[in-house]
Amino acid sequence: MPEITFIFEGDKEKKVRAEALPGESLLDVARKFNVAIDAPCSGNGSCGKCRVRLVSGTLDSKKSIHLTEDEYAEGWRLACMSGASGEAVIQVPDIASAYKSRMKIADLSDEKETAIFHKTMASVRDAGIAFETSLKVLALDLGKPFSGSSDLDRLISAAGLDIGKTVIACEALRKLPSVSRENGFKLGCLVDCRGGLARILDVWNGSEALPVCGIAIDIGTTTVSAVLIDLESGKILAKASSGNGQIRFGADVINRIIEASRPGGLKKLQSAVIGETIAPIIEGMCRSAGIPGGRVYRLAVAANTTMNHLFLGVAPDYIRLEPYVPAFMSVKGLRAGDLGLGVFPEAELIIAPNIGSYVGGDITAGALSSMIWNSTEYSLFIDLGTNGELVLGNSEFMMSCACSAGPAFEGGDISCGMRATDGAIEACEIDEAAREPRLGVIGGGRPVGLCGSGLIDAIAEMFRCGIIDSSGKIIADDGRILVDGYGMKSYVLVRAEDSGTGRDIALSEADIDNFIRAKGAIFSAVRLMLSSLGFGVDALSRVIIAGGIGSGINIENAVRIGMLPDIPREHYSYIGNSSLTGACCMLLSDRAREKVEELASGMTYLELSSEPSYMEEFVASCFIPHTDSSLFPSSARP
Amino acid sequence: MPEITFIFEGDKEKKVRAEALPGESLLDVARKFNVAIDAPCSGNGSCGKCRVRLVSGTLDSKKSIHLTEDEYAEGWRLACMSGASGEAVIQVPDIASAYKSRMKIADLSDEKETAIFHKTMASVRDAGIAFETSLKVLALDLGKPFSGSSDLDRLISAAGLDIGKTVIACEALRKLPSVSRENGFKLGCLVDCRGGLARILDVWNGSEALPVCGIAIDIGTTTVSAVLIDLESGKILAKASSGNGQIRFGADVINRIIEASRPGGLKKLQSAVIGETIAPIIEGMCRSAGIPGGRVYRLAVAANTTMNHLFLGVAPDYIRLEPYVPAFMSVKGLRAGDLGLGVFPEAELIIAPNIGSYVGGDITAGALSSMIWNSTEYSLFIDLGTNGELVLGNSEFMMSCACSAGPAFEGGDISCGMRATDGAIEACEIDEAAREPRLGVIGGGRPVGLCGSGLIDAIAEMFRCGIIDSSGKIIADDGRILVDGYGMKSYVLVRAEDSGTGRDIALSEADIDNFIRAKGAIFSAVRLMLSSLGFGVDALSRVIIAGGIGSGINIENAVRIGMLPDIPREHYSYIGNSSLTGACCMLLSDRAREKVEELASGMTYLELSSEPSYMEEFVASCFIPHTDSSLFPSSARP
Repeated sequence: MPEITFIFEGDKEKKVRAEALPGESLLDVARKFNVAIDAPCSGNGSCGKCRVRLVSGTLDSKKSIHLTEDEYAEGWRLACMSGASGEAVIQVPDIASAYKSRMKIADLSDEKETAIFHKTMASVRDAGIAFETSLKVLALDLGKPFSGSSDLDRLISAAGLDIGKTVIACEALRKLPSVSRENGFKLGCLVDCRGGLARILDVWNGSEALPVCGIAIDIGTTTVSAVLIDLESGKILAKASSGNGQIRFGADVINRIIEASRPGGLKKLQSAVIGETIAPIIEGMCRSAGIPGGRVYRLAVAANTTMNHLFLGVAPDYIRLEPYVPAFMSVKGLRAGDLGLGVFPEAELIIAPNIGSYVGGDITAGALSSMIWNSTEYSLFIDLGTNGELVLGNSEFMMSCACSAGPAFEGGDISCGMRATDGAIEACEIDEAAREPRLGVIGGGRPVGLCGSGLIDAIAEMFRCGIIDSSGKIIADDGRILVDGYGMKSYVLVRAEDSGTGRDIALSEADIDNFIRAKGAIFSAVRLMLSSLGFGVDALSRVIIAGGIGSGINIENAVRIGMLPDIPREHYSYIGNSSLTGACCMLLSDRAREKVEELASGMTYLELSSEPSYMEEFVASCFIPHTDSSLFPSSARP
Repeated sequence: MPEITFIFEGDKEKKVRAEALPGESLLDVARKFNVAIDAPCSGNGSCGKCRVRLVSGTLDSKKSIHLTEDEYAEGWRLACMSGASGEAVIQVPDIASAYKSRMKIADLSDEKETAIFHKTMASVRDAGIAFETSLKVLALDLGKPFSGSSDLDRLISAAGLDIGKTVIACEALRKLPSVSRENGFKLGCLVDCRGGLARILDVWNGSEALPVCGIAIDIGTTTVSAVLIDLESGKILAKASSGNGQIRFGADVINRIIEASRPGGLKKLQSAVIGETIAPIIEGMCRSAGIPGGRVYRLAVAANTTMNHLFLGVAPDYIRLEPYVPAFMSVKGLRAGDLGLGVFPEAELIIAPNIGSYVGGDITAGALSSMIWNSTEYSLFIDLGTNGELVLGNSEFMMSCACSAGPAFEGGDISCGMRATDGAIEACEIDEAAREPRLGVIGGGRPVGLCGSGLIDAIAEMFRCGIIDSSGKIIADDGRILVDGYGMKSYVLVRAEDSGTGRDIALSEADIDNFIRAKGAIFSAVRLMLSSLGFGVDALSRVIIAGGIGSGINIENAVRIGMLPDIPREHYSYIGNSSLTGACCMLLSDRAREKVEELASGMTYLELSSEPSYMEEFVASCFIPHTDSSLFPSSARP
């Protein structure tokens, strides 16, 4: 068995020695030995992200369009396309820094997104969703002990609770005798009162001034975002996000499920999302806000169905097997202590409910943020995250579906794609005469890649200027067009000397094709939902966009390329990370929790693949703007 | 600092090297280094149980009445009376076997006690306490999965539960997908339904036939007893008891509290009662019944106030400090997982409520078993355990008190004392003419010691035959009377050649004095309770005896020596371990839980030491039968 030694770019001291079995790819070997190699496509050779460098020894590697001859000569290989043929020393790029550059998202660290977040929260509250919870923070004076009393009895009496209907967490009981005597029997107390029962969760020295906190988390397939909130004031104390540590097991949920179903896989995936991702996020937020983890008494989680399963350590296997049955939709009664999140162990874990295998809590929580439930007029809510999910409805009725748009809108499946963060091209105009792109870059520095909104702009402009045709083929022939050894053309948006990476930032025909299929999936889903109700696009009073695509999305361009329905632009709005916002609402408002459960239980699910006209509709949508251009009157070339 | 090496009788391989600080006794050193030495009196030299043997080196030891000159010459010392003066090797007797011979109790391993247990349970049930709980065991068929359903939804629907009011334990959710598919979606399910909310606790393969179990535990200061019960049928599956591992920190609750208040002490005492005592008992019962610990879904605990605190890991410090305030009286909402008992982590922990610092859950649970609440006539309930606790009352009113009787009735404080188990003299008659004792020995073998009932008989007979006088002094002078070097007399009940230990079994004047003070404490408490209500003994329609004294108690003798009130003997009954029986009722009946809470909240507490006539009454009771012999007409010598 050939011995492989992995050495690490970021940490020269660390080495992992592994043995390859016959037939195993280098990526298989790396995963088996817990070596993190970024592989969003999970090893089918399509994404080109699993680049490693052969330092010495031999590998049996296929060539790839993702590697130039020069790179190949320098030792670069794709781990998924390489088999071990003998001893080899392999240098593995620092996946953490790869996350940082490619996957770390701006979200609430961006002022514009933060403003949108607050506005969305306010609109939910203004619609009559009271921001109140069953948690009560009490400042109590137990008074001096007297014969025949107990500390707990005096606490219950000072809190005005009913002794027969009050329970206490064991840790609170343990703290009570000392804590109550530290400050002359004045203490702080957190009680959860619901259903006629009071549960004393914690007690603390009354002179402590730390806030009582909660955390809302959006667990995306690609990215995890969270906020630490003062549960009393609703103030945000810290925000954080990072790539989902599961990414090394594949970019999409199907690959994660497959990986989880292997022996030990479920534990591995749970630990990747909790131990490597969420726990450090929580720890970091608590540290930056100066709050001990034990002061976090409630968590609200919005995640897709698979992420929900993996987060809780529940086997997701049957999500992807006929008849596509998750283990749970709505689940209550879970505690943080079941998972090891480094917060108060009795902290309630609020999980936004799933409604199907491919429409999860991220969408039900997002539907709350979308406000489509607050009007009798029909609205369409589209979450452009790692996949596309859509909800069409009004205050009476809701229908949802998931379309396999893939991660293009978050920069996945695109060779120079990235999330909407510093260095991302988020806007693009091309001067038709000079054929010179004018770019808007987040943060204002040199561009390093293209995020979803920049991609839409670039492709819309390339189409407008005649650089590509309706099918996405590059038809222009000028200095910005490159042709690789396989005959595939690319359009250079930024030349190597002007980019932040020192490499060209270019869109290949493969990238454009990936994007067109993504936008086609979105539009065909919109069409199918509408037609299943006998509606045309004019039935839509509003379209609400959310998700990782970012606030930079140019609706005009998105309509012009046939991605979004051609309705008046002022009926469009962007609401940011609707899942995280929805989770925050659920954290701060018991009514919001109820509302999300109501939305989920009333939402029907349209399985696109079982609609007879789906394939036809999808193919028709895989043109710019569409084979039926009458659907996009405003896209007609001037 | 002198180095001490402890070697162990039972385990020759094991050695502990320790260092003594100036002024520390050998017992202090042993405790600091976790060497278990039996020391019921916690080191005041009175019990003589902390015997160790000096193998080599030197010790600075005081002589003791508990060691003969021969024993001293053989190297025997009392650890509490020895200081380290140089290097020494000390042999420590096997405390486990000491427990076995001296403290392991018969209780439910004895047929007679088992019959009493079942009879008491039946009387509680017959009084209208329905043996039903909120736990429901369901056999469900979820049916095949279908699109749009989840495993949990189908479970909730098959169980006929309300989805909005059902929560699930995380571990049950994790098991659900696989367990439901193991047997064609037929599964077993345990649900706790209360207050309009259903909590799914566990699911299992429907073809499994294991019962759903609970455990009732009586945590005594000296002894812990438990039963494993099938919660559905009420059948006892296993029983066990053992000495409380805390015994090495002192025989009484005061010494345990002092020890617990030292740094790290609380953890040490909790671990002695859980890790060393209860967890092994639970494990042993489960093993013998063939039940995995995870099938134990509910625990009910009856313990005195201090034991309750130490069991839960709550500081008991303030129990013994003015104004004697426990941390809690009644506490609900605790789970087994808070403690590490090796059972289902979500198993509810039912704690019988305390009503004061010295009247705890053992007495409130016992009061349920006593049935004194089921009649308008006044009854007296006396629990003769490590201490004496009394409850006087009827269906309208209850008063309780604790008297410092000490552990004499369980064989403590008596040089040849032991619990009512094999080898214990449980009955004694003395032929007045021949001065020859006739003994009843539990198990029928050679006697090894004297249990509480044997002690009562022996002293009653010694008094009747004129061997001792009213004050307990030995006044006879025959071949059975020994006098030690300090002038203290002993009466030999069994000569060395006839005993199971090879040593004389004798009662010294010190033993008799200890006993007289114990019985005096009981009777003075009875008198004070009655007189506080303006009652005489004739107000009592029944006297119910419970506790470690065992079923062998001879009421006639107990009255004759002035321990129990002189009422018609047929009004007496013995109900065994009333705490354990009460805990069993609480385990099997939610109504019993309520009833015990009602009894506790209605029970007043009489603090004897604050009664002005207490000392006078106690002194008057420290005679045989009493200074006022008119109180014991039937005790008059024939």
